[in-house]
Amino acid sequence: MKIIYMGYEDYVNLGYRPGKNDLVCEFSVEPDMGLSVREAAGRVAAESSTGTWVDVTTSNPYVNKISAKVFYIKGRIIRIAYPLELFEPDNVPQILSSIAGNIFGMKDIRNLRLEDVDLPPKIIKSFRGPEFGIHGVRKLLGVKKRPLLGTIIKPKLGLKTKDHAEVAYQAWVGGCDIVKDDENLSNQAFNPFRERVRETLKMRDKAERETGERKMYMPNVTAETGEMLKRAEFVKRQGGEYVMLDILTAGWSALQALRNANLGLVIHAHRAMHAAITRNKRHGISMLAIAKFARLIGVDQLHIGTVVGKMEGGKEEITEIEGEIERKIIQPDRNNHVLAENWLHIKPVFAVCSGGLAPVHVPRLVRMLGRDIIIQMGGGIHGNPEGTEAGAREARKAVERFA
Amino acid sequence: MKIIYMGYEDYVNLGYRPGKNDLVCEFSVEPDMGLSVREAAGRVAAESSTGTWVDVTTSNPYVNKISAKVFYIKGRIIRIAYPLELFEPDNVPQILSSIAGNIFGMKDIRNLRLEDVDLPPKIIKSFRGPEFGIHGVRKLLGVKKRPLLGTIIKPKLGLKTKDHAEVAYQAWVGGCDIVKDDENLSNQAFNPFRERVRETLKMRDKAERETGERKMYMPNVTAETGEMLKRAEFVKRQGGEYVMLDILTAGWSALQALRNANLGLVIHAHRAMHAAITRNKRHGISMLAIAKFARLIGVDQLHIGTVVGKMEGGKEEITEIEGEIERKIIQPDRNNHVLAENWLHIKPVFAVCSGGLAPVHVPRLVRMLGRDIIIQMGGGIHGNPEGTEAGAREARKAVERFA
Repeated sequence: MKIIYMGYEDYVNLGYRPGKNDLVCEFSVEPDMGLSVREAAGRVAAESSTGTWVDVTTSNPYVNKISAKVFYIKGRIIRIAYPLELFEPDNVPQILSSIAGNIFGMKDIRNLRLEDVDLPPKIIKSFRGPEFGIHGVRKLLGVKKRPLLGTIIKPKLGLKTKDHAEVAYQAWVGGCDIVKDDENLSNQAFNPFRERVRETLKMRDKAERETGERKMYMPNVTAETGEMLKRAEFVKRQGGEYVMLDILTAGWSALQALRNANLGLVIHAHRAMHAAITRNKRHGISMLAIAKFARLIGVDQLHIGTVVGKMEGGKEEITEIEGEIERKIIQPDRNNHVLAENWLHIKPVFAVCSGGLAPVHVPRLVRMLGRDIIIQMGGGIHGNPEGTEAGAREARKAVERFA
Repeated sequence: MKIIYMGYEDYVNLGYRPGKNDLVCEFSVEPDMGLSVREAAGRVAAESSTGTWVDVTTSNPYVNKISAKVFYIKGRIIRIAYPLELFEPDNVPQILSSIAGNIFGMKDIRNLRLEDVDLPPKIIKSFRGPEFGIHGVRKLLGVKKRPLLGTIIKPKLGLKTKDHAEVAYQAWVGGCDIVKDDENLSNQAFNPFRERVRETLKMRDKAERETGERKMYMPNVTAETGEMLKRAEFVKRQGGEYVMLDILTAGWSALQALRNANLGLVIHAHRAMHAAITRNKRHGISMLAIAKFARLIGVDQLHIGTVVGKMEGGKEEITEIEGEIERKIIQPDRNNHVLAENWLHIKPVFAVCSGGLAPVHVPRLVRMLGRDIIIQMGGGIHGNPEGTEAGAREARKAVERFA
C-alpha cells in the first residue's frame, strides 16, 4: 500500500472555496497554550474526517481527496468544508459522529463549539422534513393567523389519569388549542400511558363538541424505540393527531424512526437536556445546530426558548433559531454564527415558546417572534387563582389580540 | 380540586434519609447571585420532579408524596432523593428527561452538573444489563488474563472495502484480537456496510485459520433505529459476533432497542460526542453517570478514556468510571462524587481505552486500570514505519507481558 503522509497543515487550505457538494461547519475553538488556532483547526478537521494523531502507513492517495479542509480562520472562528463523500446522507447519527464527535474531547483543545452547519443539497434531499409544518398544523386546527395556545398539564408529574384528563378538559374549554404532557411523564404507574391517552382524548372530543373548535392532545411517547413506535401507533388508532418526543434523551435514531414510520401524526419535539450541551457558549453544540437537524429529520414543532421566561436563552439567539427553522432560504450572518442554507423541499417548523410564560408575556413574544409561534403556558395558566379554565381564558384573550 | 401550595422550601428536607425506593442524584450547583445554594437546590428538585416556577391550582395532596427532596447540601454539592414512583423503570430517556432534562437550562442557575446517580433495586431489576460482559467476551476470545488488543482501521474514513478488509487482516495476523470500524464509518459509498461486513469477515476467517486464534470484527451499525437493527441482524447472519454503536449520537432509545433485540451479539459502545456534555466540570453530565446508564441498558464494552493518550480525562476520573462499570458493589467516595450502588444481576462491562495509544503506553495503563481492559490502538499500530502487521506484532508483545 502506498504511503501518503498528511500533517495537520494538509487539512488547512485558506484559498479553498466550498462547493455545492461540501458540508460546511462553523466552530469556535480555543486551543491550549502553545497551539495556534490554525494548528488546532487543522487537528479538528483531521479528527473529524480522515486523520488521526499520527501519520499512518495505511493511507492511500484516494483518501486525501475526501479530507476536510479548514478554509476560514478569523480570531477563534473557523470554518471547515467536508466533502459529501464522508457522510451517509440520511444518517444524522453518522453525520454527528463526524462533525460533533471525538473532537470535543481532544486534549490540546480546551474549548470547542459547533456553531452552525450548512448542509449540501444532496443531504437535504435525502430527508423528508416535517410532514405538517406550520401550514399543516394551522390547517389541522383551523387557526389562520394568531399564535397557537398550548398548555402543559401541571403538576408535571403525579396527577392520576382522571385528574389529568379533567385538567386537560378545563384547559381546552378555557381556550387552549393544544394540551401537552410534560417531558418526564411517559408511562408511570400513577398515570399509565394507554389509559391516559384514552381518557384525555375522550375529554378532547367533549371539549371539541362544546366549543366548536378543534383541540389537540400531545401524549409523550418517549421510550425505547420499539415501545415508542407502539405508543405512537396506539395514539393514531385512538384518534389522536399528535405525539411528542423528548428528542435528545430519546436520541436521533429514535426520532428518525418515528418520522420514517410516517404515521400521519404531528411530531412535537421537546428538547429536555439540550442545555447540558448548548448552554456553555464556548464548548459543545449550539441550539441552532440542534434545531437544524431536528428540522431536517422532520419535527413539526420545536421548543426554541422564550427570552422572557424561566429558561436561559437571549433574544438574538432565539430569533436566529426561529429563522433557521421557519425560512426556506437562510441568509448568512457573520455576527451570529449563521451560515447560509437552502431548505429546498423541507417545510417550516412551528417554533414553540415554553417555560415560565404567562399571559402578560404574549405581546412581547409576538413582537419579537411574530405570530407563527406556539405559546405554551403551564404554571401561567394553572397558577391562575381561579383555576385552569380561568387561566386558559385569560391566556386565550391575550393571543386573540393577534388574530 | 383541592389546592396545595408547594414552595421551593418544601422540596428541601435535610433530615430525610433516602430509602431503598429512592433514586438519588448528586449535583454540583452554582446559583446566580442573589440565590442561595439551598434555594437553587429546591428549584432543581422541583423542576426535575413535580414542581414548576409558580404554585399551581391543579395540585393534589397525593402529588406531594412523590416530590423530590433535597436531603444533603455541602458547599455547592447537593443530593436529591427521587421517589421511585416518578419514573418508568425500564425507560432511560424518561429517567434522563427528569434528572437531566430542563434543569440545565434554568435561568437563575448558572452551572449545574449531574455528578452521579444511585439507582434503586427496582430500576436495576427492570434492565437486562450486558449479555456477555467481561467474562463472556473473554470466553468468546479464549483469552484468560491479559488485556485484549484492538485496533481501529485507519485512516478513519476513505479506505475502499478491499483495502479496509486487507488492513483488518494484517492487524489480526499481527496479533490483534479485535478490529473495529471507526465511529464515523457506517455505510458510505466508498465502503458500503454490507460489502464491508462480508469482505472483512472473510478476512477474519482467514486470519483465524492462520493464527489458530479467535478474531473479532466490530462493524459500526450506527443509523436510524430500524436500519441499525437490520444491519445488526445482517452481521449475525454473516457469522459476526460483535456490533458497535455510537451510543450518544444514536441515542438511548436506539441502544435500548439494540439490547432488547437480544441478537446474541456483543455490543461495543463508542461514546463520540460525550465530551460536548461531560468535559466542563461545572456544567452538564459526568461521564460516570453516562457510563452507568450504558451498563444498565447492557453494553458489553465501553470507551472510558486513556489518561495517557490524545483525549482529555484524568486518572482519578477514569479509574472511578472503570470501577463503576466493573464492580458489583460500588462504595461511595465523597471526594470523587461517587455514590453507592449494588448492581445486582447486572454483569461487569469491559472498559475500553482508546485514543492516541501506542505500545509504549501499555504498562502504565495496566498499572492504573488492571488487566481487564481492552487496549485499542489505531495510529499506534498503523503508524508503525513497517506497516500494520509489524505494528500489531509490537502491540501484542506489549500486552503479552501481562498474560
